[in-house]
Amino acid sequence: METPGAFGDARKCKCYAAKAASEPLEAWEIERRGVGARDVGIDIRWSGICHSDIHCARNEWFQGLFPLVPGHEIAGVVAAVGPEVTKFKAGDKVGVGVFVDSCRECDKCRQGREQYCLKGKVGTYGAKFPYPHCAEMGATTYGGYSQYIVCDESYALRIPDNLDLAASAPLLCAGITTWSPLMFYGAQANSKVAVAGLGGLGHMAVKFAVALGAHTTVLSRSEVKREEALGLLGAHAFVNTKTAKAEPDSFDLIIDTISADHDLDALLSLVKPDGGNLCLVGLPPDKISVKPFSFVGQRKILSGSCIGGIKETQDMLDFCGRHNITCLVEKINARQINMAFDRAVDSDVKYRFVIDASSF
Amino acid sequence: METPGAFGDARKCKCYAAKAASEPLEAWEIERRGVGARDVGIDIRWSGICHSDIHCARNEWFQGLFPLVPGHEIAGVVAAVGPEVTKFKAGDKVGVGVFVDSCRECDKCRQGREQYCLKGKVGTYGAKFPYPHCAEMGATTYGGYSQYIVCDESYALRIPDNLDLAASAPLLCAGITTWSPLMFYGAQANSKVAVAGLGGLGHMAVKFAVALGAHTTVLSRSEVKREEALGLLGAHAFVNTKTAKAEPDSFDLIIDTISADHDLDALLSLVKPDGGNLCLVGLPPDKISVKPFSFVGQRKILSGSCIGGIKETQDMLDFCGRHNITCLVEKINARQINMAFDRAVDSDVKYRFVIDASSF
Repeated sequence: METPGAFGDARKCKCYAAKAASEPLEAWEIERRGVGARDVGIDIRWSGICHSDIHCARNEWFQGLFPLVPGHEIAGVVAAVGPEVTKFKAGDKVGVGVFVDSCRECDKCRQGREQYCLKGKVGTYGAKFPYPHCAEMGATTYGGYSQYIVCDESYALRIPDNLDLAASAPLLCAGITTWSPLMFYGAQANSKVAVAGLGGLGHMAVKFAVALGAHTTVLSRSEVKREEALGLLGAHAFVNTKTAKAEPDSFDLIIDTISADHDLDALLSLVKPDGGNLCLVGLPPDKISVKPFSFVGQRKILSGSCIGGIKETQDMLDFCGRHNITCLVEKINARQINMAFDRAVDSDVKYRFVIDASSF
Repeated sequence: METPGAFGDARKCKCYAAKAASEPLEAWEIERRGVGARDVGIDIRWSGICHSDIHCARNEWFQGLFPLVPGHEIAGVVAAVGPEVTKFKAGDKVGVGVFVDSCRECDKCRQGREQYCLKGKVGTYGAKFPYPHCAEMGATTYGGYSQYIVCDESYALRIPDNLDLAASAPLLCAGITTWSPLMFYGAQANSKVAVAGLGGLGHMAVKFAVALGAHTTVLSRSEVKREEALGLLGAHAFVNTKTAKAEPDSFDLIIDTISADHDLDALLSLVKPDGGNLCLVGLPPDKISVKPFSFVGQRKILSGSCIGGIKETQDMLDFCGRHNITCLVEKINARQINMAFDRAVDSDVKYRFVIDASSF
């Protein structure tokens, strides 16, 4: 075969990498494995910048494997498929999310909830392939800040044809991270849902909740976000939590996307007694603290959620296709990545940066 | 009618009361209202000492209404019934729990979950009857540390004939407090349940979980409790958390009955990913703190639960009747109440004090 990356051929590609946690990202080159029997080779078109990328590139969560090529919101086009691939063909729109493999044997993998793989999912970047079934067992994974990636078809996602690739990339993390708890905790038509924080995750939570028919309230400290929340995003209510209070005991579910320290007792006061749920999808840096009376006495639930499984992610993408839902993105080129990291830390982005992979 | 407390007659009775938060309890006298059309008059036989009684009598939770007659684990015998009463007749074994009325109109009351009444349940002691339908609107409620109580039949419970009254009294709070989360969070045969702390609440949680067929583990720092946990209480496993570790990610549900500060991250590490639940039924005095990674990344749930509704409490009592479940109690007389408070604070009781109401 002559296509670069076709069955059997390894392929070099350009990328951006952090060589160490103290350094800015810079241009680099990696080699992707040849496309194995069940692999798809993907020409990356766009890669979203997730806040996790920043935490990982800066060792803020744990000691990383460097050089680190971040990126787990990957949207592209299938360049080549292995002979046993059934889900994809060359030219298909395709995405890769937060993990590229898992043990495939545990209860969670069998249930299609690979994100909670009991032996450990394989992160799309900064991980090592630990399983014998992996084509590159022992090799380090490199993420989406690159031109090209090879992925087992079981861990790749179909992106509906009607969706714009740039605006779809962040669905693979920001999208599924907010979709999964809406599903798992039962948001539906006429649920009362609130979304705390209106950033990359928050704006997706609002779009999903609205499309599901839930009465959707945005809780934000930024008055400037009111118009867009109620207009473009379709929220039914906006409460500036600096100056106003939402109705106590009124929400079935709050999707809390705030990753800075914040007052969880105040948010718990807003969920309904007897099963109302405050679900954290952001990860505040320090321990959270809560008054026991805020949730024990009225049986309120403090929960979390982390991305989603492959089937659930595909369900979300198909839902997005039917409802024409994508992310609001700001397009940048590779040389703007470090600037974008700083702006993302300052929450100065509406609502997600996506990197043009042709600029690597 | 000639029976004291019969329809229409108010009745004086002896009790023990805290006159102020700084004072020990002492003998006192209160007047109970006459038995109204839908009331039952109850000769109290036994009243359990719940840790809440101590917190309330000492103003440790909030400013109380004094004199305060504690007691919301009440077991007795029906002495008289109003003409419209249908559930009870004189001579029936009967119990009163943590609340004696509620708004009767809100969604929660309509669902039979009066414990979460949106307008506020009426505590069995130290509250005021706020609703127009209450026979004594505006009057202060006095609890079970007394000889006699009058209660609307809708808020009284049938105690199965085969159960000992002394050993049944704590079912009305310690029992239902642990039963309700086992039901609400779906404990059943083959669930893996752990109970953290083996006191008044904990020993009931173990009995219920075992009777439901769940594989039941006791997590305790007291080696001396191992034998009784595995023997008399029927637990399947005992882990001394001072010296050993339970299996990570292994429990569907932990009922956490510990009311002192303790390490919730450690307990969260023991519940299963993707829906495993750490449910607090004790109320630690200060804010709890938890690492976000302890529950967000693996979708673990931190929840609480508070007593139960009337229907659920009756279901529990009926279950206890069928399975011959009661509490392990230490019987005391009224003059021992203050000593018992001090011992309860030191966790020096197996597993609940009950006061002989004939000693008031």
